[in-house]
Amino acid sequence: MKELKTPKGTKDYLPEEMKKRRVVIEKFRRIFERYGYEEVCTPVFEYLELLEKKANLGEENVKDIYKFQDKGGRWLGLRFDMTTPIARIVASNPNLKKPIKWYYVANMWRYENPQRGRLREFWQAGIENLGLKDEVIDAEILAVTYDALREIGIDDFTLNINSRRLMDKICDYYKIKNRDEFYRLVDKKSKLKRAEWIERLKRFFKEESYFKNFLELMESSANEVWDKIPSLAKEELEYLEKIIDYAKEFGIGERYINPDLSIVRGLEYYTDFVFETYKKGEESLGSLASGGRYDNLIELYGGKKTPATGMAIGIDRVMEIVSKDISVQPSIDVLVCPVNDSFKKEAVRIASILRRNGIRCDVEIRRRLKNKLSYADSLGIKYCIIIGREESQRGVYSCLLYTSPSPRDLST
Amino acid sequence: MKELKTPKGTKDYLPEEMKKRRVVIEKFRRIFERYGYEEVCTPVFEYLELLEKKANLGEENVKDIYKFQDKGGRWLGLRFDMTTPIARIVASNPNLKKPIKWYYVANMWRYENPQRGRLREFWQAGIENLGLKDEVIDAEILAVTYDALREIGIDDFTLNINSRRLMDKICDYYKIKNRDEFYRLVDKKSKLKRAEWIERLKRFFKEESYFKNFLELMESSANEVWDKIPSLAKEELEYLEKIIDYAKEFGIGERYINPDLSIVRGLEYYTDFVFETYKKGEESLGSLASGGRYDNLIELYGGKKTPATGMAIGIDRVMEIVSKDISVQPSIDVLVCPVNDSFKKEAVRIASILRRNGIRCDVEIRRRLKNKLSYADSLGIKYCIIIGREESQRGVYSCLLYTSPSPRDLST
Repeated sequence: MKELKTPKGTKDYLPEEMKKRRVVIEKFRRIFERYGYEEVCTPVFEYLELLEKKANLGEENVKDIYKFQDKGGRWLGLRFDMTTPIARIVASNPNLKKPIKWYYVANMWRYENPQRGRLREFWQAGIENLGLKDEVIDAEILAVTYDALREIGIDDFTLNINSRRLMDKICDYYKIKNRDEFYRLVDKKSKLKRAEWIERLKRFFKEESYFKNFLELMESSANEVWDKIPSLAKEELEYLEKIIDYAKEFGIGERYINPDLSIVRGLEYYTDFVFETYKKGEESLGSLASGGRYDNLIELYGGKKTPATGMAIGIDRVMEIVSKDISVQPSIDVLVCPVNDSFKKEAVRIASILRRNGIRCDVEIRRRLKNKLSYADSLGIKYCIIIGREESQRGVYSCLLYTSPSPRDLST
Repeated sequence: MKELKTPKGTKDYLPEEMKKRRVVIEKFRRIFERYGYEEVCTPVFEYLELLEKKANLGEENVKDIYKFQDKGGRWLGLRFDMTTPIARIVASNPNLKKPIKWYYVANMWRYENPQRGRLREFWQAGIENLGLKDEVIDAEILAVTYDALREIGIDDFTLNINSRRLMDKICDYYKIKNRDEFYRLVDKKSKLKRAEWIERLKRFFKEESYFKNFLELMESSANEVWDKIPSLAKEELEYLEKIIDYAKEFGIGERYINPDLSIVRGLEYYTDFVFETYKKGEESLGSLASGGRYDNLIELYGGKKTPATGMAIGIDRVMEIVSKDISVQPSIDVLVCPVNDSFKKEAVRIASILRRNGIRCDVEIRRRLKNKLSYADSLGIKYCIIIGREESQRGVYSCLLYTSPSPRDLST
């Protein structure tokens, strides 16, 4: 039956996978909180108008929104990110104390082709920092990303950073028109074959020399690129350099920072600093964590002009990398095994005492005694307490430390 | 602007409220895990057909489902509970090891009139136990509910229990037809005025004496009701009595258990034991936690016949009760305050050291020094570290323990 499947682009997370996700999510939470971010939660759907306002700006696509009419005929849409609902809250609550430092762990939806690490329903853990424009805050966004990824054991990654303003200046210099289209092509640098990318890039330039210079700039290594940027973009370059400077004070290793002019993600929406994060050897997974500064969004929603920056980590993507290295513990530590049904009550009583002392346990009532023990073994449960006539009379219970192949008696 | 509001029947949870919810949710999680339940997570939407199959059975209403077509023309619906997706998983995976003991903390949606403790988007924390029919398992469901509510500080409640099978037998005895309609009326016992309820009840009985006996049964106190139940329902009564018996072994205080024949929630869907939970003086909030046995649902979905029982706690409802008693901690313990911008870098460095040691802190760069301290005070942040010329040169930083009205110097 079709309806016994999850709808296209969605999946169930069963206990083994969920335990691993829980480990990762709790680590993210702890890192976010260490930087003073506080959790928020918003409805899964918003008025479609709100979503479309931001989707029109870039990155996200209006056609990717799951939309529907509610019974009152209102058009609603499932959220495609958490920046939109958070911007809505800030726009409609001008008196919130600044800085606003919020985090979330949430699911969202986009009609996209399901792929490894990104289904139509996907989960993100992210932060938003609103209220001030300062290099130190953009650097903090990088630091939180850095700490969060390292906390879950991902180390071999780079934070590829750029600036929207810087790119605008460079385009001014090279007299590029059709910026939106141009940026979409720039963004495809690593996705297209070099020859095709260059061929298409060329069309945007009137002068051959400009094209050559631009191409050289785009293909420069990280430690050369700064020197080649036209001097008219000096101010924008300095902003980016200050962020990198602060990033070091935050403890980010130098090798993790990678200036990359091809990072232009949804440029119509970001205003300044932008970044993406790639793990070496896993570039095809896409960016693990991305973000940047969006100083105009709150105003667009009718709020007071409020500088803002943030980032989101793709939980499903990082799980693709770390899942295999997280060991899953059994759900209980002790299995209480009555030898037959007449000892069920006593077994329940013993289990209740254990639970009241914070010990995770269960009473096995389905299987025969021998099968109870092999069941415990198959689940990796360490201790079995056998409850039979003798134990019951003496009030002393055998506790078997179950390490296969043979249980060791740990009578208490 | 309309779109700056949350859609009807939904709300945002901002940090203060979210911290309180987090406290409650983590306590629930810990209790569930102590009983060996493991977390699962499913998509927010399902094929509409699946949802309607269960909604048709009772309790939930097909018309209350948020439904829409996806871009491929498939009809989808937002989940209205978690029992449905979990039953889908079990029906389509016949080889899952039994018992299946799963828990969830999840949001769901129903078109209902928004009311205190129950919006159209609402959250539940619940458990499902599949694979065996046994009184001890139904008693465990009560025990988890009991422990979970007491863990969050709710004590003055009763677990009102009944059995669908028992009610069927009683109806047989009194020759009641139109059972569905009858049960819907019985369910309204506490919602309608007594006179109206009795008037409407009467219509279902052909014989006056039957009506009188039934009414007496319904209005008996908990400790009398057992004796008045017609003897043909003996077997069903015994099942319920065994559950109550086991409940005691689980440590549930006797005064918490309340047999109540008016608890008939969604009887078409439940097969046996059912219960609801009310806090004294807060009956108008509705049931805080409800559940029961549903032995036919997996089979209805095309799976192998699988006995099942479970319960769900309404998180928004319990928050209405406990929220005021949960104290909210500030988001950080230490505010690092550079005396001016030239000490920003050093402040970032100090904050990074603190964070690496697990201390939650932030660097204050918006305000002037005096305002930084009163800002810390207004948020209840305990410690301020001032970073100025002298501190920087000596490498020793003053740490103020900020207990209003005047800070105490805790130089380190």
